[in-house]
Amino acid sequence: MSPEGPVLVVGAGLLGTSIGLALRRADVDVAFRDLKRKNVQIASGLGAANLDADGIDPALVVVAVPPDHLAEVVVEWLAGSSAVVTDVGSVKSAPLRAVREAQPHEVHRYVGGHPMAGSERSGPLAASAALFDGRPWAVTPHDLSDPAAVDAVTALARACGATPVTFGPDEHDRAVARTSHLPHLLAALVAGRLTDAPREHLALSGQGVRDVTRIAAGDPGLWQQIVTANSDALGALLQDVRADVDRLLVALDGGDRAALGDVLERGVAGTAVIPGKHGGPTKTERSLFVAVPDHPGELARLFADAGEIGVNIEDVRIDHDPGREYGLVELSVAADSVDHLLVSLGDRGWTAHK
Amino acid sequence: MSPEGPVLVVGAGLLGTSIGLALRRADVDVAFRDLKRKNVQIASGLGAANLDADGIDPALVVVAVPPDHLAEVVVEWLAGSSAVVTDVGSVKSAPLRAVREAQPHEVHRYVGGHPMAGSERSGPLAASAALFDGRPWAVTPHDLSDPAAVDAVTALARACGATPVTFGPDEHDRAVARTSHLPHLLAALVAGRLTDAPREHLALSGQGVRDVTRIAAGDPGLWQQIVTANSDALGALLQDVRADVDRLLVALDGGDRAALGDVLERGVAGTAVIPGKHGGPTKTERSLFVAVPDHPGELARLFADAGEIGVNIEDVRIDHDPGREYGLVELSVAADSVDHLLVSLGDRGWTAHK
Repeated sequence: MSPEGPVLVVGAGLLGTSIGLALRRADVDVAFRDLKRKNVQIASGLGAANLDADGIDPALVVVAVPPDHLAEVVVEWLAGSSAVVTDVGSVKSAPLRAVREAQPHEVHRYVGGHPMAGSERSGPLAASAALFDGRPWAVTPHDLSDPAAVDAVTALARACGATPVTFGPDEHDRAVARTSHLPHLLAALVAGRLTDAPREHLALSGQGVRDVTRIAAGDPGLWQQIVTANSDALGALLQDVRADVDRLLVALDGGDRAALGDVLERGVAGTAVIPGKHGGPTKTERSLFVAVPDHPGELARLFADAGEIGVNIEDVRIDHDPGREYGLVELSVAADSVDHLLVSLGDRGWTAHK
Repeated sequence: MSPEGPVLVVGAGLLGTSIGLALRRADVDVAFRDLKRKNVQIASGLGAANLDADGIDPALVVVAVPPDHLAEVVVEWLAGSSAVVTDVGSVKSAPLRAVREAQPHEVHRYVGGHPMAGSERSGPLAASAALFDGRPWAVTPHDLSDPAAVDAVTALARACGATPVTFGPDEHDRAVARTSHLPHLLAALVAGRLTDAPREHLALSGQGVRDVTRIAAGDPGLWQQIVTANSDALGALLQDVRADVDRLLVALDGGDRAALGDVLERGVAGTAVIPGKHGGPTKTERSLFVAVPDHPGELARLFADAGEIGVNIEDVRIDHDPGREYGLVELSVAADSVDHLLVSLGDRGWTAHK
């Protein structure tokens, strides 16, 4: 079911413009507003809108502005229209509190949302109709929300190709504090400690530290707003982490192996509870490493061979260690296929090992 | 230059057996010892040895045993042979202290080493002659070490295909505390916090938390030994991290945006100082996302098309979000190729976006 009637998207950035493109793909009428008129022109030029915002009576308003301005824009559209209003912010409780305070009689028309999709880039030019395809989209009803408003937001998520998942606003914020905001802050701390290092020490950086710190490259201005808005849930988790760090310091100082082992064993257990590909288990895959010359077409040759061998590649990683003139490509495949693939790639002249 | 005379490898695990395979590839004579006779049989069966350890007079002994037993085995071979002795442990200062104390007159024949290579797997069956190809191999001379011993260990690293990098033992330990051991512990803390989460919260896990926590799946018994052996350097860094966490808690509690911004900005700066592919800069690549049906051969078709388009793929990542029936494949390419690749893939029927 697609949302009925015209959708007004407020904020023609990456997410707003992608929503417009996805809705137009589903033949829903869309108009845009943005304080920067140029962004509206770009979004329209990309095909994200088919209507002018002036003079339309939107059935649904999607607020896609930075976290700091989210509540005020939601309030403005609850007051200025009779539409259902939703948003796409990463934090849900604090904006709901602000909206409820400002518009207690209209808050039933507001239901928050949070598509689990994004990019290290921003702005309308980075937008894509496919950005939400198959991704979870959290829909966060509250005790006053109108069931029809919940349905409209759920329909929006579906029309954009996403899978709606329902959470209470507080529960949503606790979930993303743990799965997104805490990992971001600790990645930033690990990365930040690298800035103190003598440059030559960094020659010993392997794939591990690259993976741990990758997300710390995200836009610091945006993340500052996100962690501020979710400071309650995040602060509670960070207190737990501080207690963990204290225990680790005592254990390191006293050579307490059992305490160190506990932390490390819990880490292993934590990696096993993250849902795997298509929500399935993560433990049935095995890796194989292949040396691939660093030229166009060589990866193609590798994947063509793997395809002919008939093994489905579940994951790929290219190792970036310095000083090597070719890539070491890690292929993850079903555990019961790994030996077949290893032998068959060897037969075709590839240097591969498990 | 290859090491002269027979090399005795003590410990036929992943690293020891891989060294044997790499040395045999370079035509160096190799023998093995291991408390588990079966491991020696497996290593020999794989072609990692061509001599029996009994009755040889090794020119070089490579100690490849778990960190806890490293110093005692080095001491044993300094006493029991006239060979140069090295090791492949992740920590260098504490073993050197122990060796120097036990064998003050023979310690000049011991020079530590640390190949920056490994696997989430262990044991001789996971070994590969190519494991060290192009990887850094830290060589750690000390104030008493014999220059000829340093040369022999450097030659070993080269013969295994690695790039030797010289560090003092303390400096090595400070470097890996920052680039390897601290990231491991903080990844374990982030992952450990996931074990407390209601399962449904984990549906909101994206690629970020997967990347941050991946290394936390490593063998907890081995890591317990590593972090214990490097507790001085690691403890100092962890004190810094605790101070960072305290600052974050105060900033979150008081809504201190500037302090939050500092932490996030430092994180961004940290990701930029990690050496990139082939030691080059990391900032000149751009990503492109392609929807790929989840069948054998589809990735091959994608890479074949990319190869024909003539763009070199620098990195690949397959997104594992649950609930989707196809993979979202992230291709990293040189920034000035991304638009050409995007348009050309679109022409060939792929759904791609930046």
